Amino acid sequence: MTTASGLLDASDSVLLLVDHQSGLLQVVQDIAQPELRVNLASLAKAAELSGVPVITTASVPDGPNGPLLPEVFDNAPNALYVARQGEIDAWDVQAFRDAVRETGRRTVVVAGIITNVCVVEPSLSALADGYTVHAVINASGTYSDGAQRAAVDRMSRAGVVITDVEGVLSEWQHTWNRPDALDWAGLHAAVMPAYAALIQSVARAQAEVLDAEGARTELKHARQPAGA
Amino acid sequence: MTTASGLLDASDSVLLLVDHQSGLLQVVQDIAQPELRVNLASLAKAAELSGVPVITTASVPDGPNGPLLPEVFDNAPNALYVARQGEIDAWDVQAFRDAVRETGRRTVVVAGIITNVCVVEPSLSALADGYTVHAVINASGTYSDGAQRAAVDRMSRAGVVITDVEGVLSEWQHTWNRPDALDWAGLHAAVMPAYAALIQSVARAQAEVLDAEGARTELKHARQPAGA
Amino acid sequence: MTTASGLLDASDSVLLLVDHQSGLLQVVQDIAQPELRVNLASLAKAAELSGVPVITTASVPDGPNGPLLPEVFDNAPNALYVARQGEIDAWDVQAFRDAVRETGRRTVVVAGIITNVCVVEPSLSALADGYTVHAVINASGTYSDGAQRAAVDRMSRAGVVITDVEGVLSEWQHTWNRPDALDWAGLHAAVMPAYAALIQSVARAQAEVLDAEGARTELKHARQPAGA
Amino acid sequence: MTTASGLLDASDSVLLLVDHQSGLLQVVQDIAQPELRVNLASLAKAAELSGVPVITTASVPDGPNGPLLPEVFDNAPNALYVARQGEIDAWDVQAFRDAVRETGRRTVVVAGIITNVCVVEPSLSALADGYTVHAVINASGTYSDGAQRAAVDRMSRAGVVITDVEGVLSEWQHTWNRPDALDWAGLHAAVMPAYAALIQSVARAQAEVLDAEGARTELKHARQPAGA
Amino acid sequence: MTTASGLLDASDSVLLLVDHQSGLLQVVQDIAQPELRVNLASLAKAAELSGVPVITTASVPDGPNGPLLPEVFDNAPNALYVARQGEIDAWDVQAFRDAVRETGRRTVVVAGIITNVCVVEPSLSALADGYTVHAVINASGTYSDGAQRAAVDRMSRAGVVITDVEGVLSEWQHTWNRPDALDWAGLHAAVMPAYAALIQSVARAQAEVLDAEGARTELKHARQPAGA
Amino acid sequence: MTTASGLLDASDSVLLLVDHQSGLLQVVQDIAQPELRVNLASLAKAAELSGVPVITTASVPDGPNGPLLPEVFDNAPNALYVARQGEIDAWDVQAFRDAVRETGRRTVVVAGIITNVCVVEPSLSALADGYTVHAVINASGTYSDGAQRAAVDRMSRAGVVITDVEGVLSEWQHTWNRPDALDWAGLHAAVMPAYAALIQSVARAQAEVLDAEGARTELKHARQPAGA
Amino acid sequence: MTTASGLLDASDSVLLLVDHQSGLLQVVQDIAQPELRVNLASLAKAAELSGVPVITTASVPDGPNGPLLPEVFDNAPNALYVARQGEIDAWDVQAFRDAVRETGRRTVVVAGIITNVCVVEPSLSALADGYTVHAVINASGTYSDGAQRAAVDRMSRAGVVITDVEGVLSEWQHTWNRPDALDWAGLHAAVMPAYAALIQSVARAQAEVLDAEGARTELKHARQPAGA
Amino acid sequence: MTTASGLLDASDSVLLLVDHQSGLLQVVQDIAQPELRVNLASLAKAAELSGVPVITTASVPDGPNGPLLPEVFDNAPNALYVARQGEIDAWDVQAFRDAVRETGRRTVVVAGIITNVCVVEPSLSALADGYTVHAVINASGTYSDGAQRAAVDRMSRAGVVITDVEGVLSEWQHTWNRPDALDWAGLHAAVMPAYAALIQSVARAQAEVLDAEGARTELKHARQPAGA
Repeated sequence: MTTASGLLDASDSVLLLVDHQSGLLQVVQDIAQPELRVNLASLAKAAELSGVPVITTASVPDGPNGPLLPEVFDNAPNALYVARQGEIDAWDVQAFRDAVRETGRRTVVVAGIITNVCVVEPSLSALADGYTVHAVINASGTYSDGAQRAAVDRMSRAGVVITDVEGVLSEWQHTWNRPDALDWAGLHAAVMPAYAALIQSVARAQAEVLDAEGARTELKHARQPAGA
Repeated sequence: MTTASGLLDASDSVLLLVDHQSGLLQVVQDIAQPELRVNLASLAKAAELSGVPVITTASVPDGPNGPLLPEVFDNAPNALYVARQGEIDAWDVQAFRDAVRETGRRTVVVAGIITNVCVVEPSLSALADGYTVHAVINASGTYSDGAQRAAVDRMSRAGVVITDVEGVLSEWQHTWNRPDALDWAGLHAAVMPAYAALIQSVARAQAEVLDAEGARTELKHARQPAGA
Repeated sequence: MTTASGLLDASDSVLLLVDHQSGLLQVVQDIAQPELRVNLASLAKAAELSGVPVITTASVPDGPNGPLLPEVFDNAPNALYVARQGEIDAWDVQAFRDAVRETGRRTVVVAGIITNVCVVEPSLSALADGYTVHAVINASGTYSDGAQRAAVDRMSRAGVVITDVEGVLSEWQHTWNRPDALDWAGLHAAVMPAYAALIQSVARAQAEVLDAEGARTELKHARQPAGA
Repeated sequence: MTTASGLLDASDSVLLLVDHQSGLLQVVQDIAQPELRVNLASLAKAAELSGVPVITTASVPDGPNGPLLPEVFDNAPNALYVARQGEIDAWDVQAFRDAVRETGRRTVVVAGIITNVCVVEPSLSALADGYTVHAVINASGTYSDGAQRAAVDRMSRAGVVITDVEGVLSEWQHTWNRPDALDWAGLHAAVMPAYAALIQSVARAQAEVLDAEGARTELKHARQPAGA
Repeated sequence: MTTASGLLDASDSVLLLVDHQSGLLQVVQDIAQPELRVNLASLAKAAELSGVPVITTASVPDGPNGPLLPEVFDNAPNALYVARQGEIDAWDVQAFRDAVRETGRRTVVVAGIITNVCVVEPSLSALADGYTVHAVINASGTYSDGAQRAAVDRMSRAGVVITDVEGVLSEWQHTWNRPDALDWAGLHAAVMPAYAALIQSVARAQAEVLDAEGARTELKHARQPAGA
Repeated sequence: MTTASGLLDASDSVLLLVDHQSGLLQVVQDIAQPELRVNLASLAKAAELSGVPVITTASVPDGPNGPLLPEVFDNAPNALYVARQGEIDAWDVQAFRDAVRETGRRTVVVAGIITNVCVVEPSLSALADGYTVHAVINASGTYSDGAQRAAVDRMSRAGVVITDVEGVLSEWQHTWNRPDALDWAGLHAAVMPAYAALIQSVARAQAEVLDAEGARTELKHARQPAGA
Repeated sequence: MTTASGLLDASDSVLLLVDHQSGLLQVVQDIAQPELRVNLASLAKAAELSGVPVITTASVPDGPNGPLLPEVFDNAPNALYVARQGEIDAWDVQAFRDAVRETGRRTVVVAGIITNVCVVEPSLSALADGYTVHAVINASGTYSDGAQRAAVDRMSRAGVVITDVEGVLSEWQHTWNRPDALDWAGLHAAVMPAYAALIQSVARAQAEVLDAEGARTELKHARQPAGA
Repeated sequence: MTTASGLLDASDSVLLLVDHQSGLLQVVQDIAQPELRVNLASLAKAAELSGVPVITTASVPDGPNGPLLPEVFDNAPNALYVARQGEIDAWDVQAFRDAVRETGRRTVVVAGIITNVCVVEPSLSALADGYTVHAVINASGTYSDGAQRAAVDRMSRAGVVITDVEGVLSEWQHTWNRPDALDWAGLHAAVMPAYAALIQSVARAQAEVLDAEGARTELKHARQPAGA
């Protein structure tokens, strides 16, 4: 169900990861490769945590395009892989459309390489079939900044919601008041690296206070040599 | 009341400052930290000068996210703080929605860290509840330029007005023909630093003319050593 | 009359140059100052060539904001100057609105410093009064790239046409098949500096050919020392 | 026929290449000149491969603007050239409009130099005449990044679809399951240079495996000296 | 005394602040104006804390160059001001050279606006007179990045030590084991703004621990509203 | 022993990792935080692989500066930690100098945060004590690009060799003809992320060839779902 | 005579302007063309004001390289032009070397397009012949930023002094206490455009003061319309 | 023989092309891949034209590093290939050193991928063996801008001359007054793409003049359709 605000509802979402392949990754210029890989991993893991089904596919994985990046199945081991017979638009494949339909969900969240083809085509096709579509722009990559801006303008004008990894994570997570909050914290720290270092600094500082109070804990010595 | 032109009317505005916390500030990459802090301070002060109510909130301020930046209460001492119980979207908190509704105003001006979550979510939620929403993009911050552009595209497409600190200041101020004009000049000079130096140069140059006319004033010696 | 294509018609245009003052120029960061001044001059001159009326105004020109840049009256000597009494939005001034209305034209072309205030406010106000509005983004300037993008998004979403100096020049000029074609060529060369050097190279190369044919002309020696 | 998704259909497309001249190329600043030339060549060749008619024109090609770049006729030898008599908007020329109409196709794909004039004007004019219009932003060029963004915003807001070379190629190609797939691979490798080197690396690596298996092929020695 | 390592010794240093004037500040393009002003203030204050004498001068302060920025005397109230009679190189002024010589120190630390003139000239002149010279490149400013690089190359090649504000601060401070350590921490936090926010986050986090331990302190409530 | 070419000899090297702390990491602006952390980890691991002793230290690790980043001890578990009593220059600490001297090695390789203080000071001090010094500029970080350039210029002019992580790795590794070559390949792939994806693509492509030859191996299915 | 400080002495300088041609200007990418032309003009004019002889030359000016830019002879009408017979290094031409030698001056100041050839070659050649050489890096231009940095490194390492236009102007001018001070102010304002606007603002502000004092002058009305 | 000026003498040069392989090319980030390939091709061709011997080598060309780029042998078909047995520094290979020595030339010109390893190591090694060394920085590539700057600083400080492709071409060519001048023009146009378009414009413009003079030539119709 699409919310009135247009924010994502995990129970109505299905994640499409299209052509995140090691060869295609080489042409990406609008985002640093390590950043794109971390964003992809976090997105896949967030789907796993949220019970969002993941459908993935690859374009000619036996040739220069290369195999799917390991981030897909490492983080979403239950993802469904749909093979293609040369179709450029994954949505042209009956089995792919069926896989989406069978989830019963009406909001597709799409990421892929390269954005102008592998995200734009299935996004516009899904939109034409009546789905709500969110394109995760920084879990996707393309061959120039200008190409990215063109893809964003085209999709947005057609009605695709442009979003980012943190947006998807936060809307699926919805609240910190849940049992797996620490898992989500790990995802946010991965996407925003300064946050990870901040957590380390604060933990150490708090351990110091405990120590001064006569309550020295295990925490303090974590990762720190004896002489520190 | 929303004006026909869509320009802000101070008497109908309420300012929401969401999660401007010292820890979250560390992840901001789309604007320099000092610039963001000056913009936040100027926005809060402008609300104070205009009689615009300010509502603020923080996300888990006892942990790594850190306390609210002092700029909020230093400049808007009467701001209303609403605590949260883990909700990511401040608009999910009944007390927050009530606080906004009780101002009787229908235009909410929103800034926050990080933009893709703390501005996007309450902005879209308020829009769904019938408010006019202006998002102040440079009194907010997020983890990459690409993430900022995604947030802007998403909000703008949904109907949120994208604005900047100078836009808000000028629309609330409306005219230079008011008793507190000097206070407003100070805010503009803070947001646009070249303007501050310009004022100093012009003041000194005018003092020189007065001096040559036999009307030496106090102004000339301000901040200048005896030997100058 | 607005054309079906939305392209400018010189006979229906009026040009508004708002607050292009030497002091305000100092805060401009989204375009190099010399480039902005050349664009402003070319725009004013193009209005003069096209019979497009020019209306200009300044904000507190006796203080730090400084006088209007000389480019305005140097290129559009018949521009009408409208004084203000502190109003930030020029459109709040009755005499300004009257001046526009009395031209009988329904398309206003606006440029100003700073964009987020001096272009955004009169543009949205004129739009609310039923005018077609084109904002010339690179004959305007503001305090950061982010602020420019915010102004563009806001105006565009409201219905203002975003344009540039070359766009305005070419639509007003309409054809090269006119007596003052050389004057227009000068404007294009000013806005696009590489074009000016290209013209020099080609002229010299053609003179060389003439020389080889026994038809040495004056052209060849233009600007070149005897020994060349 | 326009597809429901808005993706291009080669059988309904006509390509307009407007004023890609050697002199005008000198003013281009929003894309590197070699990249623009490769994109232009790939686009022309893709039209040839797809049976998409190409119509081209030049503005005053005998003066500083210079002749059409050779990429046009080298790749689309059957392109139709329409001369102009000074008209800035190619669409003002009856013969140009007729040429488009006589193709019987309703989707025009446009690229040109400079974008703000030579793409914007015919695009908006064709749109007013009822055509679907796609503007290929990176097979076009203009005098600044700001000018490009203004052109994109203006066209997009009016209803022109903003696209890029890879988008056009992929939509016209539609599938890898076609006899001329290798020709298309060459075009993709030209537009995305990292892809070309990747193909070379993979081919060599595969040849090595074959060699170890006792099946040494010609492939291995391609381009490699005897001592390698 | 110059140390063997070439690191600064506060007891042998004298600080020269040359032409940091509000008008000249307008031409600075190689560093943001607010950053330059903070660096200047921190440098002046560090001299004050270290007992390093400060000598300052201005070029035609009654005209467009404007008065000295207040940061100089606000932070180094005992700075000696030496007037000039049009000399561009401050070192050409006998009183300036005398002022330096009378400090008895042999290492001059120089900053100024604009770098290529107001830092380069006195630095090379002082070097020729036998002084050791450190040029503080980010407490100085000039009209382009290219001009800065040229100034750095020229001075460095001649034997001037190129340094930055943090370098000077840390070498003058020498150790954290001193009574005024907190004052120095304030200077570092000013120059490196992320450090200031970090201190706030850590302090709050430590207060939380104390609270949990039953030792709630004043610290926790600093700057935080009742409801937090 | 220093080689004639000045290239590093692992048997004469000792690695100093100075103040790589989670809090100080927040101020780094001249290199992305994730890139710096990967470079630090690779450098520490390379020392471990090469038998190069590692000496590390931290500045006030109990306060905002935070604990050492885990990358240090995770990769160089035998690193020697030397505590400080407030000294800013680690070389001022007798135990630190002793630790270096006792390795018997005369080439110190230094990295640290922030470069202008924690790398510059010990590097210049070690140089004054007769050591050969290499500063690893991208395993270090500082607060601005300008500050980095100043640090590089200062150290280089004094005689410190400026180097990078790949330079150090390759000189210590010396040849691919060694038993632990795969470990080194992993380090190179970490520092240059495109290389990692390339390895994946090539491995998959080779597996495909084997398959076609009737020699299907385990390799092919690694990380790839059944349907691929 | 070379000064001890290495600062320029106008009476010992000769200016070489090498291959500043309209065609070659098109390949310049390391500095904006208008900025380069203004710098060239200011440098030539400064030589004229200082009595510094100017020697200029062009490479094959009859072909694509194009004629010398008019800035050379417009500002230094007495410049000596030396023709070449295909020599790439102007210093290979006997007449060129003689022209320099006959000035009797021993410091050559060189600028040219493109830097890596037309500045590097004569600079290194003149150095080998015993001259002191200053290369004016921003009155020269080349085809990429990387190429510029390579040229600077090479020349600097060989002993050429790297300088900029403002450096040359200020050293030749030496003092503001000279009859032609206003002419020099004009050159500085041309090179640093913000300075020009500043002068206008200050002049207007001073005129306002005079007016308030009952001493209205001509100055006030300069360039300002009646209604202002 | 090394010239007094340090400019290259083709008769004393030998060109080393080290590890320009299709796989290694993927990690290059400090220069666009197409630009690097064009520079490599031009350098190899210039050696061919100048009679400069070329020696090339590759690192593990059977694995992910990939085969040598075709630009090497396409342009320098007589290049000598020296295989390696895992040595990282090509200079460690006796056959490589012998190949250089046997040319009898004492100036080595080096380019390679990646710069910090494949250029730095043989350059410093050759220098230690008494050769003069020029490193061609933009015919080489590495993994970040910072890594490039570190490599340049290190080599330059050690005595390697830093140069660029245009510098090498121009010094080897020496004069335009030679039979193969057109071949050299082609190389310059390849390295500086704007120059190529300029030549086309000028040729067309000259053809137009001839036409007007009654001397229509073949040139005019080159590449231009009938209707132009």
